[in-house]
Amino acid sequence: MSAPQARTKRTFGRPLNFKRGVIELAHGSGGRAMAQLIDELFAKSLNNPWLAQGNDQACLDLPAGRLAMTTDSYVISPLFFPGGDIGSLAVHGTVNDIAMSGARPLHLSAGFIIEAGFPLGELRRIVDSMAGAAHDAGISVVTGDTKVVERGKADGVFINTTGIGIVPDGLHLSGDLARPGDRIVINGNIGDHGVAVMSKRTDLDFAVSIVSDSAALHDLVQVMVAAAPELRCLRDPTRGGVATTLNEIARQSGVGMMIDESAIPIQPGVAASCELLGLDPLYVANEGKLVAVCGPQDVEKLLESMTNHPLGKNAALIGEVVADPHHFVRMRTGFGGSRVVDWLSSEQLPRIC
Amino acid sequence: MSAPQARTKRTFGRPLNFKRGVIELAHGSGGRAMAQLIDELFAKSLNNPWLAQGNDQACLDLPAGRLAMTTDSYVISPLFFPGGDIGSLAVHGTVNDIAMSGARPLHLSAGFIIEAGFPLGELRRIVDSMAGAAHDAGISVVTGDTKVVERGKADGVFINTTGIGIVPDGLHLSGDLARPGDRIVINGNIGDHGVAVMSKRTDLDFAVSIVSDSAALHDLVQVMVAAAPELRCLRDPTRGGVATTLNEIARQSGVGMMIDESAIPIQPGVAASCELLGLDPLYVANEGKLVAVCGPQDVEKLLESMTNHPLGKNAALIGEVVADPHHFVRMRTGFGGSRVVDWLSSEQLPRIC
Repeated sequence: MSAPQARTKRTFGRPLNFKRGVIELAHGSGGRAMAQLIDELFAKSLNNPWLAQGNDQACLDLPAGRLAMTTDSYVISPLFFPGGDIGSLAVHGTVNDIAMSGARPLHLSAGFIIEAGFPLGELRRIVDSMAGAAHDAGISVVTGDTKVVERGKADGVFINTTGIGIVPDGLHLSGDLARPGDRIVINGNIGDHGVAVMSKRTDLDFAVSIVSDSAALHDLVQVMVAAAPELRCLRDPTRGGVATTLNEIARQSGVGMMIDESAIPIQPGVAASCELLGLDPLYVANEGKLVAVCGPQDVEKLLESMTNHPLGKNAALIGEVVADPHHFVRMRTGFGGSRVVDWLSSEQLPRIC
Repeated sequence: MSAPQARTKRTFGRPLNFKRGVIELAHGSGGRAMAQLIDELFAKSLNNPWLAQGNDQACLDLPAGRLAMTTDSYVISPLFFPGGDIGSLAVHGTVNDIAMSGARPLHLSAGFIIEAGFPLGELRRIVDSMAGAAHDAGISVVTGDTKVVERGKADGVFINTTGIGIVPDGLHLSGDLARPGDRIVINGNIGDHGVAVMSKRTDLDFAVSIVSDSAALHDLVQVMVAAAPELRCLRDPTRGGVATTLNEIARQSGVGMMIDESAIPIQPGVAASCELLGLDPLYVANEGKLVAVCGPQDVEKLLESMTNHPLGKNAALIGEVVADPHHFVRMRTGFGGSRVVDWLSSEQLPRIC
């Protein structure tokens, strides 16, 4: 991402028109129009010394430790939803994937694929939102890329963010470390993100008060890691929801799980919306939630650390890891029975993130 | 990217049908279909211990040094072209952006955005090509992401790769370091990539023998860095071509440039194709080329090191850096005159990378 500071007017002539202008193919050409877009939008909004340097890569001095690296592309529709937009989501989602390793997130890259004709004003709204979320999370977007495709060859804006962070020495969290007897914990209500996005798609009146839980969880994770040395694994239940995340961990660790339906926190409005829409909230995406697996001796300390944090105040113990050669996730239901909570096998909510 | 090894058949039932199968929305759901796609395609083809671990992030032990980080999304059309495809291109392009800092490339992430209906067989061809290019470059694709959008909301496949590498201690290459008197060098013929892609788009007979120059340049860069301590800056002239790259460096460094038209290496077939298509080869994208700026005392050693390398055998001195308050790039033409080589101001070849 080229971002020289000087002589902008001289090089580019008239400034970008954020009121009525739209993205054109030339903005992805590598030439003058792209340099102007980078100068007057990306480098200005995401403002940091690496972007200002104007090279095609950022050179970073990192603290000691192992490096965590993760990538996610965001194709959510609609781009703006109650509680966030694709810009803030692209920061939170990737920060969280770094944080789930216990790492402290440091830097992001951002790759934009934009459909020609997309309004410059909306793009600025998205980039500013991204800048705000990055600032709040204490990280920088240090390098980027802009591609433009013809009308009808994309859908508004897609964003890829790739993140790096530093894992503290001696910390090893991984989805293959769950053992029978471990406890399963979640940091709060499930399903908010998916239902908030659906409410915007369908203009559902009843769901207007439901706001995405999209949030950066790295600070909560630091608190949890400090409180619970027996923490085995963290994962954020985004696409596929809590059910799929638990199945992934069960499969990776070669164990089963038993969860309690009544223990899983959910807002009444989300539960009602899911019922009306025919969605199972266990499969609905979250963007500010994490599932933790923890040795039994530390689970009380873990829960206490979580409930004292703003992003964990509704934290709950939802089940435990059991021995099961089939690696099933089972759920005790309200009627005293139990049922298998399988992997999500079709797609109930496309383009939720 | 979840990639557990065991019990694939048990978890997924029938294996993916690479002969007749297509990508469906469920392959981006986060559920069972996505896990199967990761297992049977991505993790298998890109095979390495980080993907096999099946976490949402890779944890990496890095050698000491500064970290270079860069990102690029690839939206090239068509996906397959003479000399490569979007998979190999997505490796070479990002490896090169790392290498232009003098860094040794180490790891890539890969984010796929796929249009529903895309043939599984073509996707496998792309991923295998990516795996081959990564293997040849000595790097690993350590983490990934798959998103699927509805038919008509993308164009086949878009790929983002983000790369990291280690910059050797004491090495500092940057676009703002060019000084009057420095020499400008290129490692070979210009315009091959753009013309090869255009030949495929337009079915031009005359261009059938022209093959993209797409290649990973990090090994050549190591040789150049060792030979020329006075190397100031490297940049790969992709979108916008050599003309735009020179203008970027001139602007960053606050200098002008004077290049010689007759010194710029170009294949006769590429020159003829450009003439017929109305393209200026100075603005046509390259994918295996680099422009180097070097202090005058080291330029002979630099050129010698390049011409001894397979990717630099047509290397040439094409001009020099001059003082110019307007930061113009000028070119001495065949007729004894000179003209300004401006920034690319529109888009002559959309979706070339």
